[in-house]
Amino acid sequence: MTDTNCHKIRIQDKTVQLPGQRVLFEDPMPLDSGLSFGPIEIAYQTYGTLNADKTNAVLICHALTGDQFVSETHPITEKPGWWSLMVGPGKAIDTEKYFVICSSVIGGCMGSTGPVSVNPETGNPYGLNFPVITIGDMVRAQKRLIDHMGIKKLFCVIGGSMGGMQVLQWAVSYPEMVFAAIPIATAPRHTAQNIAFHEVGRQAIMADPDWCHGAYLEKNKVPRAGLSVARMTAHVTYLSEPALHRKFGRRLQDRSNLTYGFDADFQVESYLRHQGYTFVERFDANSYLYITRAMDYFDLAAEHKGRLANAFKDSPVRFCVVSFTSDWLFPTKANRDIVHALNAVAADVSFVEVESDAGHDAFLLDEPEFHETIDGFVKGCAERWFNGHGKGAIS
Amino acid sequence: MTDTNCHKIRIQDKTVQLPGQRVLFEDPMPLDSGLSFGPIEIAYQTYGTLNADKTNAVLICHALTGDQFVSETHPITEKPGWWSLMVGPGKAIDTEKYFVICSSVIGGCMGSTGPVSVNPETGNPYGLNFPVITIGDMVRAQKRLIDHMGIKKLFCVIGGSMGGMQVLQWAVSYPEMVFAAIPIATAPRHTAQNIAFHEVGRQAIMADPDWCHGAYLEKNKVPRAGLSVARMTAHVTYLSEPALHRKFGRRLQDRSNLTYGFDADFQVESYLRHQGYTFVERFDANSYLYITRAMDYFDLAAEHKGRLANAFKDSPVRFCVVSFTSDWLFPTKANRDIVHALNAVAADVSFVEVESDAGHDAFLLDEPEFHETIDGFVKGCAERWFNGHGKGAIS
Repeated sequence: MTDTNCHKIRIQDKTVQLPGQRVLFEDPMPLDSGLSFGPIEIAYQTYGTLNADKTNAVLICHALTGDQFVSETHPITEKPGWWSLMVGPGKAIDTEKYFVICSSVIGGCMGSTGPVSVNPETGNPYGLNFPVITIGDMVRAQKRLIDHMGIKKLFCVIGGSMGGMQVLQWAVSYPEMVFAAIPIATAPRHTAQNIAFHEVGRQAIMADPDWCHGAYLEKNKVPRAGLSVARMTAHVTYLSEPALHRKFGRRLQDRSNLTYGFDADFQVESYLRHQGYTFVERFDANSYLYITRAMDYFDLAAEHKGRLANAFKDSPVRFCVVSFTSDWLFPTKANRDIVHALNAVAADVSFVEVESDAGHDAFLLDEPEFHETIDGFVKGCAERWFNGHGKGAIS
Repeated sequence: MTDTNCHKIRIQDKTVQLPGQRVLFEDPMPLDSGLSFGPIEIAYQTYGTLNADKTNAVLICHALTGDQFVSETHPITEKPGWWSLMVGPGKAIDTEKYFVICSSVIGGCMGSTGPVSVNPETGNPYGLNFPVITIGDMVRAQKRLIDHMGIKKLFCVIGGSMGGMQVLQWAVSYPEMVFAAIPIATAPRHTAQNIAFHEVGRQAIMADPDWCHGAYLEKNKVPRAGLSVARMTAHVTYLSEPALHRKFGRRLQDRSNLTYGFDADFQVESYLRHQGYTFVERFDANSYLYITRAMDYFDLAAEHKGRLANAFKDSPVRFCVVSFTSDWLFPTKANRDIVHALNAVAADVSFVEVESDAGHDAFLLDEPEFHETIDGFVKGCAERWFNGHGKGAIS
């Protein structure tokens, strides 16, 4: 095991110096596919201070295109961290009270081992020789990090979208290590529609000749067009129709009349193109393939004889499940399926459907009711945990 | 004007002999863009017999990727006509009673003038030199055909999706020529979300190097990959989540376990890829750009001082508006906007929201309540029309 504080990553045709920490686990790790894979490096970021008892850790699990830069300026985009509204001093996840950890998922492209990493056996990037991983594998790698930090039990595991899948997986795989779990805008399985949209994105990437059958890094190419189209497709699914209407409607871009051409006449076209172009500068095409695949494979019930409730049997974890009314990608119904399964085994669960017209992305936005929900649940859990009820349960 | 019964079209790298008729209008036609364009050829198909009074004509308007082969084996795909369930002897649109007409839209690729047609001035296909057209232009071209046939008033104009847009445009542009109008699963304007999905498809096509900036025909290329991705994206929007779940769920394709790879593990992936591949064999990429653009531009209210009701003021047309509960592309709300506008000017309108879990594509499928709705409305209109009430109105 090696801890380092300085690392560089390759993203597209640039090399970027990343802040944060990383740790290298030399031992191979068993994967859900049956393979054994290693070494594995985990890049992560922390905020706040771990207390002496190591009982104040909050693990944040990021979404498909998220990363470890939760609450600080992003080293590539220079935008605020993706959950700055939720995580920070005095925020719902209060970094003055909690030690917040977020690691880049394996398979990603922000420092943890993924297809862009160099295969030590060949000296070349893994590319498509990287093994197909699952949400379970991502969580297994995170557990290595948590164990390495000497944390026996996480006060809270929280995340939205694919982050929510990891939260559920944590609660199912390591229930004794999780006091409270907050899966947000997520699902216990990827639906046919979810898989369909991901497949469109993957086909767009693989259709780009610059993808070079996955070996674009060796050939100094970047499948920009394909990755950009994949992002555009996905982005439409992150927003609700009312949100798009409110943001753009049919307003024209920098002009007062239709041009009768194929330029971006409408603001929404220009916005989408921008989303595509900028995404390409911070994300790796093969990582996009691997991470979408991991989400498609996610099906908690399948691992438990087809009955989701079995996954949560005798769970000591306190759950707060949150959905958003206008989220059509991971709609309330999918989140309610989690609640029903938890209820069926008499687990400790509360459920809040937040009224919002922002669509799936609501979990990243300034949604006061949502932030109050998280704040309230975290404070309630903290009372139980730090007054010894939960803390007693560690030993 | 020239009438012909034999014509060939070029579709991708093949030349195909098309059944049906076509007529050439040498005179240029004014377009909504302000340009004047011609000559224009209209390829069309008819079913049934026009009566001596020419009062039994039903015009069917097809959707984005539809064509004139409504009720017969398709000359390229060899599948049944796209509305065989609706149109034929004894069907709701009864070809033993009605003379049914359907023409390929201009801008399309099934024989009517479009980007694949040869520009008589250059001898090369128009490609991107084809003018950007609108739903209004498509309908203007159809009116030439109807005038040419000597039909003074259509008994009924009917169509779903983009076909429904044309129905609305007919009722607004030529109200005195339409006795009954049936816009189905459509909208009075394309929303930001609708435009966004189309833009993703266009970007996928334009990202394909084989698109050659629109000049792929001259270069003997076909932008298969891009057009295929565009079709896949659109196809997901045509189906509801419950329909995808019912059809595919998370069932695996020809295998009993996940392969941990990027082949089509799930049936839904395999289905989508197939949709993409087969579409490419029957559709032209530039036509896809032009027709999606026409839909994006559609906004009936905009042409009437921003108030949709103005478009229908004093309309003599009898309307039946139909939507489907699970259609999220042109949802009930969008169809209800049409009904509200018609009500605001005291137009003759009935509205049916059909319960269906099939999504937008429901209008193409065996949906008994839907077919009964059309059958009932058409029969009711026929009683009024053929008993002289409406017929009197032609003269």
